Amino acid sequence: MTSTKTNPGNYFEDFKFGQVIVHPTPRTVTVGDVALYTSLYGTRFAVQSSDAFAKAIGYPQSPLDDLLTFHMVFGKTTPEISLNAIANLGYASCRFLKPVYPGDTLASTSEVIGLKENSNRETGTVYVKSTGRNQNGDVVLEYVRWVMVRKRDKENPAPEAIVPKLPERVDPKDIGVAVPALNIGGYDFALAGSPYRWGDYEVGEKIDHVDGMTLEEAEHQIATRLYQNTAKVHFNQHTEAKGRFGKRIVYGGVVISLARALSFNGLNNAFHLAAINGGRHVSPCFAGDTVYAWSEVLEKAELPGRKDVGALRTRLVAVKNNDCATFPLKKEDGQYADGVLLDLDTWVLLPR
Amino acid sequence: MTSTKTNPGNYFEDFKFGQVIVHPTPRTVTVGDVALYTSLYGTRFAVQSSDAFAKAIGYPQSPLDDLLTFHMVFGKTTPEISLNAIANLGYASCRFLKPVYPGDTLASTSEVIGLKENSNRETGTVYVKSTGRNQNGDVVLEYVRWVMVRKRDKENPAPEAIVPKLPERVDPKDIGVAVPALNIGGYDFALAGSPYRWGDYEVGEKIDHVDGMTLEEAEHQIATRLYQNTAKVHFNQHTEAKGRFGKRIVYGGVVISLARALSFNGLNNAFHLAAINGGRHVSPCFAGDTVYAWSEVLEKAELPGRKDVGALRTRLVAVKNNDCATFPLKKEDGQYADGVLLDLDTWVLLPR
Amino acid sequence: MTSTKTNPGNYFEDFKFGQVIVHPTPRTVTVGDVALYTSLYGTRFAVQSSDAFAKAIGYPQSPLDDLLTFHMVFGKTTPEISLNAIANLGYASCRFLKPVYPGDTLASTSEVIGLKENSNRETGTVYVKSTGRNQNGDVVLEYVRWVMVRKRDKENPAPEAIVPKLPERVDPKDIGVAVPALNIGGYDFALAGSPYRWGDYEVGEKIDHVDGMTLEEAEHQIATRLYQNTAKVHFNQHTEAKGRFGKRIVYGGVVISLARALSFNGLNNAFHLAAINGGRHVSPCFAGDTVYAWSEVLEKAELPGRKDVGALRTRLVAVKNNDCATFPLKKEDGQYADGVLLDLDTWVLLPR
Repeated sequence: MTSTKTNPGNYFEDFKFGQVIVHPTPRTVTVGDVALYTSLYGTRFAVQSSDAFAKAIGYPQSPLDDLLTFHMVFGKTTPEISLNAIANLGYASCRFLKPVYPGDTLASTSEVIGLKENSNRETGTVYVKSTGRNQNGDVVLEYVRWVMVRKRDKENPAPEAIVPKLPERVDPKDIGVAVPALNIGGYDFALAGSPYRWGDYEVGEKIDHVDGMTLEEAEHQIATRLYQNTAKVHFNQHTEAKGRFGKRIVYGGVVISLARALSFNGLNNAFHLAAINGGRHVSPCFAGDTVYAWSEVLEKAELPGRKDVGALRTRLVAVKNNDCATFPLKKEDGQYADGVLLDLDTWVLLPR
Repeated sequence: MTSTKTNPGNYFEDFKFGQVIVHPTPRTVTVGDVALYTSLYGTRFAVQSSDAFAKAIGYPQSPLDDLLTFHMVFGKTTPEISLNAIANLGYASCRFLKPVYPGDTLASTSEVIGLKENSNRETGTVYVKSTGRNQNGDVVLEYVRWVMVRKRDKENPAPEAIVPKLPERVDPKDIGVAVPALNIGGYDFALAGSPYRWGDYEVGEKIDHVDGMTLEEAEHQIATRLYQNTAKVHFNQHTEAKGRFGKRIVYGGVVISLARALSFNGLNNAFHLAAINGGRHVSPCFAGDTVYAWSEVLEKAELPGRKDVGALRTRLVAVKNNDCATFPLKKEDGQYADGVLLDLDTWVLLPR
Repeated sequence: MTSTKTNPGNYFEDFKFGQVIVHPTPRTVTVGDVALYTSLYGTRFAVQSSDAFAKAIGYPQSPLDDLLTFHMVFGKTTPEISLNAIANLGYASCRFLKPVYPGDTLASTSEVIGLKENSNRETGTVYVKSTGRNQNGDVVLEYVRWVMVRKRDKENPAPEAIVPKLPERVDPKDIGVAVPALNIGGYDFALAGSPYRWGDYEVGEKIDHVDGMTLEEAEHQIATRLYQNTAKVHFNQHTEAKGRFGKRIVYGGVVISLARALSFNGLNNAFHLAAINGGRHVSPCFAGDTVYAWSEVLEKAELPGRKDVGALRTRLVAVKNNDCATFPLKKEDGQYADGVLLDLDTWVLLPR
């Protein structure tokens, strides 16, 4: 007697416009998760690394790295959203809304905000707005992502096509609420690793983050399981050996975290990732690849009513097996250059 | 002057019937261990993952995954019991008796309950009952295991053969004491990932847990050291290259944990491993192997005086490099099928 | 517009005698770091492993493994001291001065105490005294190290050569202050794993620590990032493939920790590393190497006014791909024998 109690994942036909999905397995985040995060990416932003530093500027203790929160919230959504996904097409409107501290419990829900069958009738694009909440029900994070999902049956009828209108970028008046009013007098720039404040960066400035980090299978698997992300392509060599690339694919979030950690060298005081305006995983990353990163300052913004921190809109680009001295991005034909892994449009906050 | 202060491990002749061994290195378990456990296996049972979930049903906080407790208690026994072991032959009568929380300190003792020299006179079987206690001396876990241990000298006389009578299974009236009286009204089945309760499972039901996980050397070494397990075969490629398999052998407990974590898909609400009735590591697992798992419901039992939880006796089978759609177990000749790693007979508890 | 805000690392010309460098990124150490440390090295000293054990002898809780403190303090110094270093030449006068507990925040400063250009004019030796402090400003650790650093330009003038006079060993009257007055009556030698006290060891005694541990790339990378050590040679296969060895070099501190953890087998009660008198990384270690270790007791010392603990001066030798049954160290010509990785001169404390 074969059980039908396992989760086969949702197919395109299973998603309904307006549907709200409660994702299983809430997760209490701890200093253990923080230690693992540091050990996997080598991140060095002082606010997240030192309770003493965080307290000196007005936090009760070090908050979690924003991307650790992101991956925890995202990981929960994989069993229902992307188990049968072919591709994670993009992110938009991602905002960090409340600091998360060790001991907080995170849970995720997703609302289906768009659906569009592809012309081949074999797949469709699903747009979801996912929300992470803490144990008090406060929203700590929300973001939109869209994924290409297989249909169960090509002959099934298509739903009405609804494509959400997504803003090009998060409005700077809507960011920064996860950062309490800070006492910048307590911010020790020597300990933070750089004298450069928000005012020292200019639009158009490009920063080669210099260092490179080679990824191992054990590392990305440990990271991705830490987030309880269940996407099969990251973990199963037995099936992936017969798959598209012949090997396991690194969870894109690992590349984002690595690029963000590398960005410390040059953006040392950009301690808070306030928003992800948009992002694309341009090409897949595999174990053995060495990841480099560079950033470009796209825009500067003051935050309404705040003199403590300012926002830089930066493009964060990750590249594999090629250093970033020449800021690789696109070829003459407009296609991404070989080796580009990630093109992420973010708002980061720095002390003023 | 060469020291004789190192531990050469015990040989068969060193074990005496009735002897009680105090194992060194008590261990305080922490949220750091919990984070590592999650990152190594990707376990997703809500009770162990979320303090908020655990509190809602009557725990003071999330208890440790039962197998993390098991490995910690087991690991301590390796220097005295199995350093010179050739094979870990089996487990029986393993019961989890008290919840373990981060901050608790675990220590292990073992009593020799059986001894039998093998006919070749070069090895013998040692039966021990091992007990894990917390910092208050409360027993949190006990189990019997038997191992084949080398003799120091073939000519040494054999002890009187004593083979303990081991029950086929733990009596269901003896399990479940590690679970406080629960408020199942507070158990959120959506957050737990499945609507299926104890009553929804039937004897004979077979569950393919679907997912597979490929193991890396770094992963099993990190896991096994976390438990302070010192068995050489897991860590030393320099000697294992000349050994039986030419490579390091994965600690069997890693396979158990992986299979249990995979079993979440289909047994999502089986949040507590109450007992291991018996178990065999059928074949060795190596780095590079992909582990799959399936379960069969062998028996259902109510627990005396309890309406909150019920027990399922399940066979948990782990298989390598072969998915479990056909529930691989034994061949026509009664031998285990190729690729079967583990055959574990357990009691797990689910909400009623 | 290319930014100049990244850290290119200091060159020999950038160091000035007497200069004090504040190293960035203070670090709160947690039970998460402790769990990772255990999982990476398998260390088993009871005082650091069990809060209950530590309390029984007079600690408020388990202190951090001394080498975890060392690596955290050392790691912070790499961006300013050794980013352009060719070799880490040696350590001296390293003393552990205060216990560190989970929750403490560590920060590092370094004072330049010596400078000497090499005759080739392309490099020079920089001597620094580095100091680790906790969140209260108390010194927890200090040590001297000297590194060979590239010059920016061969033609730049040499500074006045100043070479600090370093003691052959730390005076035993200056060690042990990191250990509170202990109640040795509460020290359970069975739980600690050995009956041997300070008085049981003799000068000249050599201990083969027996076990070997094979290192994986993921393991040393995870360890080295945990300490926020940024030295490129440990992480970047893309550049190291073209480098001296064609592969990544394991951070020497990983070898020290592995050797110290292995030394438990034979020095089980040497629970505190009080000082490093001197040390050399004799040859590089790579992923795939199996590390063994042995110790020799060089000297015994009482500590002034203390009857609870005594000090052993031990030479701790790590060797790769060769067991230590013959205590490999030097060849007849005085050169180190093949495979010797580390020659470390330490003071360790044991109960009397």
